[in-house]
Amino acid sequence: MKRKAAVAVVVALGAGLSWSALAQVKPEILIKQRQAVMTLQGKYFGPMGGMAQGKVPYNADVVRRNAGFLDNLSRMPWDGFDPSTKDVKDIKTAALPAIWSEPDKFRQAADRLQAETAKLYEASRGGDESAVKNQIAAVGKACGACHENFRQKQ
Amino acid sequence: MKRKAAVAVVVALGAGLSWSALAQVKPEILIKQRQAVMTLQGKYFGPMGGMAQGKVPYNADVVRRNAGFLDNLSRMPWDGFDPSTKDVKDIKTAALPAIWSEPDKFRQAADRLQAETAKLYEASRGGDESAVKNQIAAVGKACGACHENFRQKQ
Repeated sequence: MKRKAAVAVVVALGAGLSWSALAQVKPEILIKQRQAVMTLQGKYFGPMGGMAQGKVPYNADVVRRNAGFLDNLSRMPWDGFDPSTKDVKDIKTAALPAIWSEPDKFRQAADRLQAETAKLYEASRGGDESAVKNQIAAVGKACGACHENFRQKQ
Repeated sequence: MKRKAAVAVVVALGAGLSWSALAQVKPEILIKQRQAVMTLQGKYFGPMGGMAQGKVPYNADVVRRNAGFLDNLSRMPWDGFDPSTKDVKDIKTAALPAIWSEPDKFRQAADRLQAETAKLYEASRGGDESAVKNQIAAVGKACGACHENFRQKQ
């Protein structure tokens, strides 16, 4: 009883998911979720980008933590780009129609980010600062390449 | 050169972090980032809560993935509750003043969530469905306890 009650409370406070329609999460929620991932990718990539550029002092512990988070985050946004979100008008989104008209290319861009962040995670476990910085740059390029093709210019 | 250019692009497209003021991220950005974490905790806890309640078919693969994501997410929001965010008026937030007036209690609630999600991660690697469901409920209670004390009633 206690277990069920506790879960129910959290569910009620949750992200708008309804149990009977988990496979049909509202498009507005999907957009909010994928944008949340981008926000956090910015949070954890940002300082590492600064380190790779020499604008922020290099901190191996921060890189290790951030690379681990980013490795997870890079797997989170993609199901949020469901075709049902294409025609939502009342949320501001920079997602371009190419996401849905060129799904293979979009998938490749997604895979590239995941591959590069996985490599960064590995590199961050080693002690080679220069290798880590190069891999931070590779992750940055993967972000940029996807934005270039699939996100409205900002 | 190529490396620097790529990083700069991403930085410019990023989350509003400026290199010279990484230690002083704008309070509005901090709020957006911590809310992004809550959104994603809802995304990945939601289906597991449904499974623990028997309202969604149990899927060990989904639990394994979601528990891993949640274990990471549970470590992300806390630096977003910086005292500088207390007086921001132009973003809707349900954060209660108790977060800053009872910092030890808030820290305990944060630690509890992290401990419970770490246990869920471990349990999800084993094959004991009942243990996993109990631990999902324990995570739900940790969410609920923190919301009870530190979040406006919704």
